[in-house]
Order: sequence, then C-alpha cells, then structure tokens
Amino acid sequence: MEKIRRVERVVALTKLLVDRPYYLFPLGHFSDLFGIAKSTLSEDLLSVKNALKQFGLGALETVAGAAGGVRFIPFREGLQANGILEEISTRLATPDRIIAGGFLYMSDILFDWHLVVQLGEIFMTRFAHAEPDYIMTVETKGIPLAMMVARAFNKPLVIVRRGSKVTEGSAVSINYVTGSSKRIQTMSLPKRAIHPGSKVLVIDDFMKAGGTARGMIDLANEVGGIVVGTGVLVATAQPQPKLVDDFMTLLILDEVDEHTKKVTIRPVLDGLR
Amino acid sequence: MEKIRRVERVVALTKLLVDRPYYLFPLGHFSDLFGIAKSTLSEDLLSVKNALKQFGLGALETVAGAAGGVRFIPFREGLQANGILEEISTRLATPDRIIAGGFLYMSDILFDWHLVVQLGEIFMTRFAHAEPDYIMTVETKGIPLAMMVARAFNKPLVIVRRGSKVTEGSAVSINYVTGSSKRIQTMSLPKRAIHPGSKVLVIDDFMKAGGTARGMIDLANEVGGIVVGTGVLVATAQPQPKLVDDFMTLLILDEVDEHTKKVTIRPVLDGLR
Repeated sequence: MEKIRRVERVVALTKLLVDRPYYLFPLGHFSDLFGIAKSTLSEDLLSVKNALKQFGLGALETVAGAAGGVRFIPFREGLQANGILEEISTRLATPDRIIAGGFLYMSDILFDWHLVVQLGEIFMTRFAHAEPDYIMTVETKGIPLAMMVARAFNKPLVIVRRGSKVTEGSAVSINYVTGSSKRIQTMSLPKRAIHPGSKVLVIDDFMKAGGTARGMIDLANEVGGIVVGTGVLVATAQPQPKLVDDFMTLLILDEVDEHTKKVTIRPVLDGLR
Repeated sequence: MEKIRRVERVVALTKLLVDRPYYLFPLGHFSDLFGIAKSTLSEDLLSVKNALKQFGLGALETVAGAAGGVRFIPFREGLQANGILEEISTRLATPDRIIAGGFLYMSDILFDWHLVVQLGEIFMTRFAHAEPDYIMTVETKGIPLAMMVARAFNKPLVIVRRGSKVTEGSAVSINYVTGSSKRIQTMSLPKRAIHPGSKVLVIDDFMKAGGTARGMIDLANEVGGIVVGTGVLVATAQPQPKLVDDFMTLLILDEVDEHTKKVTIRPVLDGLR
C-alpha cells in the first residue's frame, strides 16, 4: 500500500470513530490499519479531538491501560440541543397536527431519522450519568427514538411488545392500566432480552398519565432489571402526578385545544433545568 | 476565531458529511463555516473523497451548478458487505434460535443498531438504481432496519400499522391474507404519509409466503404510490412462488428443522448475484 498522507488518515480515523459512538477501539486497531507508530496515532487523535471540540461535534475520550483505547462520545448539549428542541416545539405547535381526542400527529418527527439521531444524542447527554446497560421501549412509534438512544450509548435496544408474539420464544407478560383511558392491557418481553441485574433506561415518545411507562418499569423489574431512568420526548403537563415518580421529558405539552385549534408546547432547555 | 488548521477542518468536514448520507450540502455552507475560499474547500473535499475511497468507507459526490453541492453516499458492497452477511448468517444458524413453529429468534440482530446501520447501507447500495422517495415497512420488528435504509437514502420512513390507530388521523386500510397462516388481517397507513406519485421501496425483516409484503405493496398503490422495489433481510426458500413476484433478499433460509435442531441459511453475496 502506498504511504497514506496524514490528512487522509485523519479522515478515515474520524469516519470510523464517529460511526460507532461509545465503542472503545484499541489503539492497536488504528496503528495496524494505518501502519503507523502509536506516537503518530496519538498526534492524529489529538487533532480529531480538538476539531470535534472546536466545532461542538462531540468528544473523544482516551482510556488508559491494557484494556484501553479511544472512543467517540456524541454529546449534544447547550445551544445546539436547545435549537433542535425549539425547532421540534415549533413544528409540533401547528393546528393541523391536532387529531380527534386531543392527540398530536407526531409520526413525521418520530420517523425523521436525522432529527431522531440528534434526539438520541440529547437523551444520551442528559442520561450519561445513569450508565444504562439496555435501552427499553414499547412498540411502535417510539422505536426509532429509542434505537437512536441505544446508538448514542452503544447499548442494546429491548422492545416490549403489546400482547405476546410467538416469534420471540418464552416471554414474561404483565397487565397494566393505561392511565388516561383506564383500560387494562398486556405487555410482554422475551425472557432472554435482559441479563438479570442490568441497568435499564426506559424511553418512550409520549407520556400522558404514565401508565405505559409504569408498565415498562414493572416489566423491567419483573425480569430482574434495575431501572435507572425514564425519558420521554413529550409529556403532557396534566394530569399530575403521573404514575411514574421520576422521569425526564424533552418537551412539555401544556394544552391541545380542539376548539380554538391551539397547541401549547415548550422545550425543556439546557441551562434552564 | 483563531485560524483553523487544515487537518482539523478536514475532521469537521468529514464528521458533518458522513453524519447525513445523501444530503446535498451547498459548497457555501462549508466555505462560510470554515472561512475559506471555495478553491481551498475543493482541495479539502478531494482529500476526504480519496480517503473514503481508499479505505472503502463510501463515496463523495459533487453536484455541479447553482443548486449543486457535495454529498456523502455510504456505499457498502463487495467483500465488506459479504463479511457482514456471512456474520449474520453464522449467528442465525445456531440451534438455540429455533422457536416453536419453525420460526427463528432474530430480534437481537434486528435491534443491534450498528449491524442494522450496515444492513441499511447494503440495501441502499443494492437499490440505489431505484431512487425511492419513501421507505415503507410494517410494524414492529422491521422498523429499525427500514429506518436505517431510510437513513442511507436520506428519505422519509413510512410505517404501516396493523389495525388503525387513533393518533395518526384518517387512514387507508386494506385487508390481506397472510400467506403462511391464511388468516385475514388489516393494515393501514395515514393518508398524509405519502405524496401521490411517489416512488416507494418496501422493506421487511422476514418473508415466508409474502402476504405481508403483498399487503404493503397494495396499500402503497392504494394511496397513490409506485412501488419500485421490495427488500427483505431473510426470505425462506419455500414456499415458491411467493405472493410477491419480484423481491430482493439478503439471506435465504433453506430450512429450520425442529427435530434435528438444524438451521440452514445462506447469504446472497455480492458478485454472486
């Protein structure tokens, strides 16, 4: 192979690192790939680190020791995070989103992968201290969001099913009461989805009374998990209190008025928490 | 702002480009961001392009003209694609994945975001000629996969629901017959999900008789879409023919033998198609 120029090496290094958030690459992986000494690699990594920091694109972390290496952490905070949340808030506050029953049409936002990647990184930043082993959600609409939280943490995603599906083997089921409509429903999780004793972060797109999140927390406990946090994209201001004591929401939906066609929603901004 | 060194500029450029596959950045966006002339930017872009090509990390495409710019295309083909498909094939061919009824447990693979990102790029590479406007799938397990195909194409994801859910407004519903169990089921799509005349790529995780894919194709036609392709991760070798004439699968499941606990599955490799 011809000698690789530094600038091209740094391009490849950047691409490989940012493609796998939180994944710890051994330094030998890169020094072998590029055929360079570790000292040269350290200089390259410093350039990547400085550039990412300067442009607010995340952090590079070096872990020392034999099991060490380097990893990219996609922090998204401050003005950048606030800008995204304000944009979503504005997009959600339009009258044509109101659906009969006081719901909001949100699918276009929940299925916009680029927006959802960024939301995943905001959740990761706000829950970084919780160090979850798994990200859990319930089908259907919250799946892309939870997947991107899992991506930002580099942890597996676990999906709770409504009912119990045959293609996932033996499962644990629980009944739960939806807080808003007071109906009894069933949700289930394959037994092999979580290792007992693992830390679980629960993510969902929407919370009204909190019955669904409560169900997921109970189910996580049932299979031996420890819930270390609950995050939702949108939570309604009412009813209070919710069925979940402690949760973090990115947006607060104060009111959907079907008569005046007015939606009142606000982001929970960095620096104001 | 202090003067930005070339190597750091190239790091930021790489990160911003690879974060948004297929998104056309106007050249002015980057020359403004870095405070450099377009000629300097062109040199930087050439370095990024060469490095990505040299390491098999995708392509950089420059579009000329007033509406032009530069975009990253995450091609994943040849040996790299084959390696991923062979890995999945090996992982799926283990006896403990067999579930009563001859099904295979696949959720861990379908919810492994890093694997699914790469699968999305393989689907994109194989369907690039089809130039879809939307990626369509049906809940639940195929959603992450379809989302990553949507990411690789930079196109919106449309999710067909089983039944008709209140929170998505007025919807078109169809009945379809599952090819394997011959049951009549309903699936539906919000009317506003697709613009009439748009090209739709249907993606699903598994195909046996093809009834579900057939239903999605009919539903896409029903709302005025034009289906330009159908892709699945795993298709069973039998029954033949399927209810869908023309589809592309990444893996072929020849047999699941519940008695001998043997799974026979093989990847559809690049160069062998």
